[in-house]
Amino acid sequence: MRIGVLGTGMVGQALATRLVETGHDVMMGSRTAGNEKAVSWAAQQPERAATGTFADAARHGEVVVNATGGGVSLEVLRSVDTSDLDGKVLVDVANPMVWAGGPLPTLSPDKGDSLAEQIQREFPGARVVKALNTVNAGVMVDPAARVPAPHDLFIAGDDADAKAVVRDLLAGFGWDPALVHDVGGIASAQGLEAYLLFWIVLRTHIGNHDFNIHVAR
Amino acid sequence: MRIGVLGTGMVGQALATRLVETGHDVMMGSRTAGNEKAVSWAAQQPERAATGTFADAARHGEVVVNATGGGVSLEVLRSVDTSDLDGKVLVDVANPMVWAGGPLPTLSPDKGDSLAEQIQREFPGARVVKALNTVNAGVMVDPAARVPAPHDLFIAGDDADAKAVVRDLLAGFGWDPALVHDVGGIASAQGLEAYLLFWIVLRTHIGNHDFNIHVAR
Repeated sequence: MRIGVLGTGMVGQALATRLVETGHDVMMGSRTAGNEKAVSWAAQQPERAATGTFADAARHGEVVVNATGGGVSLEVLRSVDTSDLDGKVLVDVANPMVWAGGPLPTLSPDKGDSLAEQIQREFPGARVVKALNTVNAGVMVDPAARVPAPHDLFIAGDDADAKAVVRDLLAGFGWDPALVHDVGGIASAQGLEAYLLFWIVLRTHIGNHDFNIHVAR
Repeated sequence: MRIGVLGTGMVGQALATRLVETGHDVMMGSRTAGNEKAVSWAAQQPERAATGTFADAARHGEVVVNATGGGVSLEVLRSVDTSDLDGKVLVDVANPMVWAGGPLPTLSPDKGDSLAEQIQREFPGARVVKALNTVNAGVMVDPAARVPAPHDLFIAGDDADAKAVVRDLLAGFGWDPALVHDVGGIASAQGLEAYLLFWIVLRTHIGNHDFNIHVAR
């Protein structure tokens, strides 16, 4: 599948690399073409790796992955041609954190909202799926090796077919399909994004990023 | 131990009953003495159960449990004699939710704050421990029967001795001490309270309250 990954940071690099490894044709997008991190990333891939602007990457992808910082995601998406998002699966991995000096960040959307919903409202032609924002980049792309015990992932979105596409990508990464929970429509992203504050508290407690949670019944 | 439980709702009843069962001397406090639910609760206990106002219950307790609704907790605590909180362990179980018609509530403290911190700031003599707010009332008091798989609890507070007291109470309820995570100072309550939005999303997904999470490493 052709996939556009928006973002050159740790999350974008991890996802783009793993998508190439699992057989996809990936373009990493950044603010300006020729971005050093993107070019360096592409040079390390055996094949099926390209770089371009955010707009180029969105045009390239049958699936588009938002791996930009949550604080700039809307601005980034506004820089692409909207028609290049229409009908496409848009996987929103971002966490809309604002760090202002305290021990914990705050979440940037107003109460009763989420970044994923903001994106879905502003780009109604895109089929937004919130996914992977509840784990560290390393865990996202290699769940079994980073966290040997059973652990779960949560996806939310209004389009069932789009969620099925995301499920397939996640299975390719090594996520056990039985442990990928579809928690409903895009409004459920409020819960998945709020979870991040809990995740940060846990990370401090545990002392590293290689953990996740498993739903117990 | 003498324990004052503030609140006559499902959480207050569950905790008060279990505290009596595990050998404690409990007074259930409510807005007015003679509250029907409190009196009915006390009548069902074999012994060591009393009722009174919030102020009476706070005076009674060596440990005070805030099991009131998060939206009224500060008002309730302001109705007790502050000296009856000084030096005492104050277990804050409340979730500060505001339901305004959407599928999810919002959290009432301002961003970068939590109910537990508000309580700690306003009652600096109390030793506030956030605990049990991440599970349903039934799971709180009977963790092994309600959720057979291993699952975890999270406590936060600035006073290590107070957290040790809470750990003992939790062990009495049946919580495996190895699965009770001390996640740091009272500011960590921001993460534990934000978790509630995630919990509500999970509850809708799962369809009942008898679940929890286990940290996977």
